[in-house]
Amino acid sequence: MARNLVFILALTSLCIGLAAADWNILNKKSKNRDASSLKIYCESWRINVELNNIKDFEVVPQECVDHIKHYMTSAQYTADSERAMEEVRLHVSSCCALQGDGKDAWIFDVDDTLLSTIPYYKKHGFGGVKLNATSFEAWMKQSKAPALDHALKFFHEIKDKGVKIFLISSRSETLRSATVENLFNAGYHGWSGLTLRGLEDDFMKVQQYKSEARRALTKEGYRIWGIVGDQWSSVEGLPGAGRTFKLPNSMYYLS
Amino acid sequence: MARNLVFILALTSLCIGLAAADWNILNKKSKNRDASSLKIYCESWRINVELNNIKDFEVVPQECVDHIKHYMTSAQYTADSERAMEEVRLHVSSCCALQGDGKDAWIFDVDDTLLSTIPYYKKHGFGGVKLNATSFEAWMKQSKAPALDHALKFFHEIKDKGVKIFLISSRSETLRSATVENLFNAGYHGWSGLTLRGLEDDFMKVQQYKSEARRALTKEGYRIWGIVGDQWSSVEGLPGAGRTFKLPNSMYYLS
Repeated sequence: MARNLVFILALTSLCIGLAAADWNILNKKSKNRDASSLKIYCESWRINVELNNIKDFEVVPQECVDHIKHYMTSAQYTADSERAMEEVRLHVSSCCALQGDGKDAWIFDVDDTLLSTIPYYKKHGFGGVKLNATSFEAWMKQSKAPALDHALKFFHEIKDKGVKIFLISSRSETLRSATVENLFNAGYHGWSGLTLRGLEDDFMKVQQYKSEARRALTKEGYRIWGIVGDQWSSVEGLPGAGRTFKLPNSMYYLS
Repeated sequence: MARNLVFILALTSLCIGLAAADWNILNKKSKNRDASSLKIYCESWRINVELNNIKDFEVVPQECVDHIKHYMTSAQYTADSERAMEEVRLHVSSCCALQGDGKDAWIFDVDDTLLSTIPYYKKHGFGGVKLNATSFEAWMKQSKAPALDHALKFFHEIKDKGVKIFLISSRSETLRSATVENLFNAGYHGWSGLTLRGLEDDFMKVQQYKSEARRALTKEGYRIWGIVGDQWSSVEGLPGAGRTFKLPNSMYYLS
């Protein structure tokens, strides 16, 4: 009798153990499936931002902040940006009948094209919270944004070809000296113009403001061979350029 | 003496065993690193194609064919395309002051927008070999390309709003009946125009040919509210549209 009881108890324990193990496996599988679905969902969000199908987002969706943070601090982001700059270099090596008359021009965006704002976003929610203009400006005033190395390299290469470099940024005019200092500290020098947003530009959307800045250049007789920017609003609109290149950035959207 | 010999032999075997294990681990690590580098490299190639930084490629780089094949047949590709179409739907729900006068228009590309050519590319090197026009045309003549489900759904939604649908494809005019049959078989009906490339269009690049087709529509008084295509050449150029949407496709490039 006692032997039977022991046997039954043992069998029951075994069954409970197996059920618990099964539940754990199912639970783990379900968690993996959820994690995999979330990854696919957030990657789709990101790729559609890059394709400019998703526009005007104010913040990165809460559930995708970790995904974007992971991408923007990954070897993949670095490789993607580097590859983009390699394509710029490849294009420039064969594209342009430079006239050497001082009117050949190339345009760069500043933030997340020449200088990285990732150190700021790392500490401020990685696009998942609405940008606090005051805190962002305070950070920019420290002039500590690091260069994007591959952009820095190309900047000097194209300058050495005698092409005039114009920087058109949506930073405020009030940040001029901090921006110049930051650019210089990061290794940039020898640009021919730095356009920042004055009070009179504030009523314009970024794309219109940048288009107007390009129009001013073409009026002065410049031939704009190319634009490199991380926002579609930096490269779209008229007048255009010989070629435009879009660097990846899914932390924020400027329209 | 014999005992010492046995000990030394045992120690030597152990050392050889450990060394072999180490070598295997190192080899495996190195292979993983190579695989990881290749994945990053090929993903950078793909994202820069989608960003339109890499243009005019004739074939997918040999080392990236597997990566592209994996993506184009993955849940990620489906999710990315679906998300793009959801953004189209979201945009249309609020964008357009449709006038209901029969002049509201929407444009779709055909291949890899309404119909999928993936079944063909699956059997023909997934973009890694130069397209064989004869074999591709023979496949298109079978009229068996399946619909992209999310595009099919939106096609009927926008048609039901009274918007006229125009299909502008870089397929040849000689494929008209096969294309119509394929579209119909896949569930598409009720479009207002299907523009295919005639002999006279052959000297033009795809972007110019598609722009001319849009110009003809605007001359007839149509308001083009949007374009959906998988190639930048389907959505760029003038006249433009209220909004354009680019579906992912890194198997081929039409300029």
